[in-house]
Amino acid sequence: MEILNITPVELDVHNNELILLDQTLLPNEEKYIRLKDKESIWDAIYELKVRGAPAIGIAAAFGIYVCVNDSIATDFDSFYREFSEIKSFIASARPTAVNLFWALDRMEKCILHNKEKSINEIKKALLDEAVSIKDEDEKVCKNIGEHALALLKPNMGILTHCNAGTIATSKYGTALAPIYLGQERGYNFKVFADETRPLLQGARLTTWELSKAGVNVTLICDNMASMVMKKGWVNAVFVGCDRVAANGDAANKIGTTGVAILTKHYDIPFYVCAPLSTIDLDTDTGKDIKIEERPGEEIYKAWYTKPMAPQGIKTYNPAFDVTEAELISAIITEKGVLYPPYGKSIREVFE
Amino acid sequence: MEILNITPVELDVHNNELILLDQTLLPNEEKYIRLKDKESIWDAIYELKVRGAPAIGIAAAFGIYVCVNDSIATDFDSFYREFSEIKSFIASARPTAVNLFWALDRMEKCILHNKEKSINEIKKALLDEAVSIKDEDEKVCKNIGEHALALLKPNMGILTHCNAGTIATSKYGTALAPIYLGQERGYNFKVFADETRPLLQGARLTTWELSKAGVNVTLICDNMASMVMKKGWVNAVFVGCDRVAANGDAANKIGTTGVAILTKHYDIPFYVCAPLSTIDLDTDTGKDIKIEERPGEEIYKAWYTKPMAPQGIKTYNPAFDVTEAELISAIITEKGVLYPPYGKSIREVFE
Repeated sequence: MEILNITPVELDVHNNELILLDQTLLPNEEKYIRLKDKESIWDAIYELKVRGAPAIGIAAAFGIYVCVNDSIATDFDSFYREFSEIKSFIASARPTAVNLFWALDRMEKCILHNKEKSINEIKKALLDEAVSIKDEDEKVCKNIGEHALALLKPNMGILTHCNAGTIATSKYGTALAPIYLGQERGYNFKVFADETRPLLQGARLTTWELSKAGVNVTLICDNMASMVMKKGWVNAVFVGCDRVAANGDAANKIGTTGVAILTKHYDIPFYVCAPLSTIDLDTDTGKDIKIEERPGEEIYKAWYTKPMAPQGIKTYNPAFDVTEAELISAIITEKGVLYPPYGKSIREVFE
Repeated sequence: MEILNITPVELDVHNNELILLDQTLLPNEEKYIRLKDKESIWDAIYELKVRGAPAIGIAAAFGIYVCVNDSIATDFDSFYREFSEIKSFIASARPTAVNLFWALDRMEKCILHNKEKSINEIKKALLDEAVSIKDEDEKVCKNIGEHALALLKPNMGILTHCNAGTIATSKYGTALAPIYLGQERGYNFKVFADETRPLLQGARLTTWELSKAGVNVTLICDNMASMVMKKGWVNAVFVGCDRVAANGDAANKIGTTGVAILTKHYDIPFYVCAPLSTIDLDTDTGKDIKIEERPGEEIYKAWYTKPMAPQGIKTYNPAFDVTEAELISAIITEKGVLYPPYGKSIREVFE
């Protein structure tokens, strides 16, 4: 049974176009946009039409392929120069998005590795590489989903925060992967989605993709998570992450730490789903992770018909928080479930 | 120094009008409306132009006085019949607001107590009673503020949830009373206001009244409370309450319990400010308090330019939660600070 009929990032080889689900229009409109020049690709990344680290990486790989595939260069040097210019340009769309650079670098390595071949053969190699980036991501997500699902039983209640789902990846997502795999196998989970202030990724995106796949999902405000836990409706919490430090501290969307503290109070397992690519061995602990602060207007102005706070009000709007390893029951990777002490289990999984 | 220049509920004796600050227009407009007939008073209560249990009670008392003061009745029976009709009508504006009935009942007792007097004398007695209701509330709030302030030191950081401030009472509020008294005495508190989803009382009302009084206030999303506590910026949390059970369990705006659990994790005192009138000895524990559930549209539609969740999405929208006594460091009443075990301290304060 195929329950997931959303393809957030795709390549139309025939027309040489990048196809993106425009996430800025969700949940009110499901619109796929077709892009074939670097300006519109830059724009789509910059304006968050595509979001979620893996999805951005895939979009960048497909995007740069689409651009250079139109190249009329006949020698390697001209072709490579063209590639490099487009690469720098697309990379500038979101200067802090690690996956964006990672995917573009991988495409560059592919070019250099094939430099002795004909331009057409190089183009074919780039296509294969971009498709590999997508296929690998899908496998990673599916494996995370399988490992996570093994921790669950049918009819359980699951709470999630923000959106670490299909549309943030190639398919399945990370935190939502066990929910989709469970759904395919009749697990009948009951999911609670935190709305995730201020940008409402939970309300706008998570409820949208889960309900589209037929999952039983209930939207709550972030401050209602305690209530649903107290009522005994939540058996496990799954969240994604932006970066995991070598000691297991995990940075994720603001509000994640609060949810983790609630799970400790109510004795509910708290799971972080993390592709190995998000575990950063060079970051010792969460203290070394810099937290982006964003404009206060996101809190009192965004999407509202009128400002919801007095003009000039002081705000504090951190985009992420760092959940300490001691609050995390397990970190679920594509290579298996890591348990505390994370310093050891993380080191081992990379060996 | 008088820092509080907001009068949420007032009586204009000269023109025989009830004056209300229209809270539905805050923070974008500070508009005082003048009411003199029962229909517009009913409407103001129903549409939450006046909100907060004590403020509703005062508005009802002033309101019914204004209505019957215009009566041309010359005998007690006609006057009392008129009063009773208006009372039933105003009471129907918010059928679950205990303070509304309490204030109207008090006015009725006043009439019956003075039935032997002339109509003009009865009108004067009703005026005095309504003014007393307001004055007593102001004293209760001020006393709560003094007791709470004694627990604090200058330059402390204080976090609050929802709005238990001046505009919810006659003056000072309950949870915000120590902040105003501290402000008058140069305590230089730094206040964090949770926005309080879904109805945003923190963003719209608390930041408005605090900043108007010159208090240093910072608006955060509810899910950022953990972050400001972790940073060490919060030395105490003060919240109001809707009802306190005989064992100390306290019902308050949804999200309060989550904040209390965070304070336990970060070892920060969590104080509930409660006029004795909100302590209900007939309610044994919080389990006996019924929690109102409200429409999901408040979560994904209210104030937004477009719906922020897919059409027909399931929601869970409890308006209140009950914080267990074990999470409450102290309950601050007008008669002093109550400490655990609350069963005992609550019983004693009523003796």
